[in-house]
Amino acid sequence: MKKKVVIVGGGFGGLKAAKVLADYPDLVEVTLVDKRNYHLFQPLLYQVATAGLSPADIAMPIRNVLSDAKNVTVYLEEIKSVNIAHNSLETTGVSAKYDYLILACGATHSYFGKDHWEEFAPGLKTLEMATEIRRRILMAFEMAEKEADENIKSEWLTFVVVGAGPTGVEMAGAISEIARQTMEADFRNIDPNKTRVILVEAGPKVLASFNEELSLDAKKDLQHLGVEIMNQTMVTDINATGVALKLPDGKEERIKSRTVVWAAGVKPSAINSTLGVPLDRAGRIIVTKHLSLEAAPNVFVIGDQAHFEEEGGRVLPGLAPVAIQMGAHSAKNIIRMIKGEKVREFKYLDKGQMATIGRKLAVMEFKGLKARGTFAWLAWLFVHVYYLIGFKNRLFVLMQWTWSYLTFSRGARLITKKNWQET
Amino acid sequence: MKKKVVIVGGGFGGLKAAKVLADYPDLVEVTLVDKRNYHLFQPLLYQVATAGLSPADIAMPIRNVLSDAKNVTVYLEEIKSVNIAHNSLETTGVSAKYDYLILACGATHSYFGKDHWEEFAPGLKTLEMATEIRRRILMAFEMAEKEADENIKSEWLTFVVVGAGPTGVEMAGAISEIARQTMEADFRNIDPNKTRVILVEAGPKVLASFNEELSLDAKKDLQHLGVEIMNQTMVTDINATGVALKLPDGKEERIKSRTVVWAAGVKPSAINSTLGVPLDRAGRIIVTKHLSLEAAPNVFVIGDQAHFEEEGGRVLPGLAPVAIQMGAHSAKNIIRMIKGEKVREFKYLDKGQMATIGRKLAVMEFKGLKARGTFAWLAWLFVHVYYLIGFKNRLFVLMQWTWSYLTFSRGARLITKKNWQET
Repeated sequence: MKKKVVIVGGGFGGLKAAKVLADYPDLVEVTLVDKRNYHLFQPLLYQVATAGLSPADIAMPIRNVLSDAKNVTVYLEEIKSVNIAHNSLETTGVSAKYDYLILACGATHSYFGKDHWEEFAPGLKTLEMATEIRRRILMAFEMAEKEADENIKSEWLTFVVVGAGPTGVEMAGAISEIARQTMEADFRNIDPNKTRVILVEAGPKVLASFNEELSLDAKKDLQHLGVEIMNQTMVTDINATGVALKLPDGKEERIKSRTVVWAAGVKPSAINSTLGVPLDRAGRIIVTKHLSLEAAPNVFVIGDQAHFEEEGGRVLPGLAPVAIQMGAHSAKNIIRMIKGEKVREFKYLDKGQMATIGRKLAVMEFKGLKARGTFAWLAWLFVHVYYLIGFKNRLFVLMQWTWSYLTFSRGARLITKKNWQET
Repeated sequence: MKKKVVIVGGGFGGLKAAKVLADYPDLVEVTLVDKRNYHLFQPLLYQVATAGLSPADIAMPIRNVLSDAKNVTVYLEEIKSVNIAHNSLETTGVSAKYDYLILACGATHSYFGKDHWEEFAPGLKTLEMATEIRRRILMAFEMAEKEADENIKSEWLTFVVVGAGPTGVEMAGAISEIARQTMEADFRNIDPNKTRVILVEAGPKVLASFNEELSLDAKKDLQHLGVEIMNQTMVTDINATGVALKLPDGKEERIKSRTVVWAAGVKPSAINSTLGVPLDRAGRIIVTKHLSLEAAPNVFVIGDQAHFEEEGGRVLPGLAPVAIQMGAHSAKNIIRMIKGEKVREFKYLDKGQMATIGRKLAVMEFKGLKARGTFAWLAWLFVHVYYLIGFKNRLFVLMQWTWSYLTFSRGARLITKKNWQET
C-alpha cells in the first residue's frame, strides 16, 4: 500500500521534495498543492520589477516541471489549515488526508504592522507585485517627461527603496542604471542626472549578512552608481507623496517621492498559526533536527517557513539553497520512515551568498572566500542561470542578459494596466 | 518657423507617420500622444492569449522606437476631444494647438450594444485582455483537473470562440492545440480528447474576407484540429456558464462553457463623435482621397479609425498594411503642404492577407495567388517576424517559435492575478 504524501508549496523546497519523491513511485503517491500554477525563481524577481526580464522568463508551470513525475499530481489550491492530530489539511477546494506532510509555504513581506503602507510601497514577493513596481517606475519617468512644475518633476524623479538587503540593493542599483543609462536617449525633457535613488536602511550597513569588507564594497559600488545611502534611518510613515524618516541623530526628515519600493521585513505564511505548534518570534515554525515537528514526526516544515537552528545556534536564513537542501532532506527522511529506517539530522552545506549591484558590479562570499567586481558579477550570472528551472528559461534569460549588456537596453519596458477591462 | 504636427496613437499608422516626419527636422516639430507607453504588434496578440509569447515579445516602448527621432516628443496621454475649428485638442493632461493633426486612434471591440457580455467573453484588443484570456484558458484546465463532477468538468473543458475572422480562427486553432498537444503530459485527470473547442460565426463561412476555396481549406484544417464550427449561428446571450445560440434553422441551443472568447465586432475610437464630421455606419470617420477631412484639410485620419473608399467603392479593411501605408502617405502629404506642393491621393498597394490555423496550417492570398499548408504557414511566420518592430523582438519571437515547434510546448503558461495586492 503506497503512502500518501502531500506537499504544500511549489517553491524551491517543495519542488525539490517532489522531485526526490518522484523516484519512489512504488512507495509514495504525492500531491503537490500550490496557490500559483508556476514555480517562481524569486532571486530574479527584481529583474522583472526593473523591466529587464519578462514574468515568463523566471516562472515555469509546476505541472510542467513535474510532467514526468507520474506519481505526483498537482492541484491549484490554497491551503487554509492543517490538523496535525488528524493528519488532515483543508484547502480552498478540498480537505485531504495524508500519511506524510511537507509544508513549504514560504514567506511574504511584512510592514511591521503598518499594512496600509503597502499601497504606497509595494514589496517584491510575487510576479504581480513585480509588474506593479515596474509600472510605477516606468510611469514615474513618463509623468516627469510631461511635468512643467520643476518641484513635482523632481518628486517623480526621486525613488526610495526601503531595506538594504540583497533585494533592496539590487533594486536601487537597477533603478539607478535605468535612469542613467537606459532612459537617457528616449526622453526629451528629463535630465538623468536629476534622478535620485535613495536606499534607506534601519541598520548600520548595506548587505548586513555579508562580511564587513564586502558590505563596504557594495556601499561604494552603489554610490558610484549614484545611489544615496541612508543608514540607521527608520521609516516612520509612507504616503502617496513620500516617506517620513527618523535620522540617526533623532531628527525627522521627509523625502518627497512618488515611487517607493519596500524591501524590508519578511513574515512567514499565515497558515503557521493554525497548527498549534511553537513558533519563533518571527512567526516561523520551530522544527526538530530532522526538519519535522516535535508533536508530529510525519509533518515536515522547510524553507522560509521553518525555524531551524544549526549546531552553535545559528538559525538558517531564508535562502534558496537552504530551501532546496531541506526539500531533498525531508523527502529522503520520509522514504527512510516508510522503509523503516532511521531518520537523519539535517546539516546545511553552506553555499555562500551573493548579490548583484549593477553592470559588472557584484559581491560574493563562499567559505571565507570573497570576491567583488566583474568576477563576482559573472559568477552571479552563472549561478542564477544555472539554478533557473528549465533549459528554455536558462537559454532565454542568458540571451536577454547578453542583449541588455550589449545594448544598454531593457527588454520589458511595458506599463500595463491593473484591470483588464481598462482601455 | 517649424510647423507643429500632433499624432494621436502609436499603432502601425501613427508610428509610421512619426518615422516619416522624423526625416524633416527642419520643417516639423512632432508630438506623438498615446495612452500606452508601447507600440503593440496586434497580429500576434492571440499568441499572448494562448501562452505562446510574452507581452514584451510583441510590444516595444514607443519612445524607444523613436529614440533617434529628435524632433519627435512622446507623451503618455489619452485624447479627450478635438476641435478642428480651433486646431486644438484636449488630452487627459493638457490641451495643445497643432498646425497639422494625424488621428490614428485605432479601434476596439464591440459587443453590438451588449456590453455586459464583456465580463464573460473578453475580446482581444489589449495586452491586459490577452493575459486575462490566457488566465481563463489555463485556469479552465486547472479547474477541470480537480473537478470530480463530470458535467462541470466538461463545462471547464468546453471553449467557445465567437467570430470566425482571422483572430477567431487563430484563437480556436491555438486552444485546440494547447488541449491536444501541449497539455497532455502535464495533467493526470484530464482526457484531452474530451476538450471541445467551438467556433461560432454569424455568417456562412470562416475567414469570410478570403477567397471561397481558402475559406473551405481553413474550415477543413480547423476541423482536423478538432474545432467544431457552427456557421450562420447567432449568439443571443452570454453568461458565466455558457452561451445561448440561435441556430441556422431558427432553433435555440445552449452551450455550457466556462471560457468564452469574443472575436466578433469592432468599433472605432470614442473620440470620433467629438469632431462633428461625417461618420460611416460603423462609426469610422469618412476621409477624402488625401486621407484628410473634407472640413479640415490639415487633419488626417488613418488606419482603423478611417473610412476610406477606393476607386470602385471598396472600403479598405482594418489591416496593418493599410494603416502603415496611410501613415506614410499622410505624413508625406503634410510635408507637401508645408512645402507648398500639391497633396496626392492615397492608393492602397494590396499586400494580400493571411491567417494561421495551427502547426504547419495556414492560408494566404496575394494578388490572386493562393497558398495553404506548410508553405503558407512559413510565409505567415516570416511576414510576422519581419514586420515586428525592433531587431530584438524579431530574434526572440523567432527563437520562441522555434522552441515551441521543436518541443510542442508553450513558454508563457502563467496564471497571474488580476490585482497585485492579491497573494
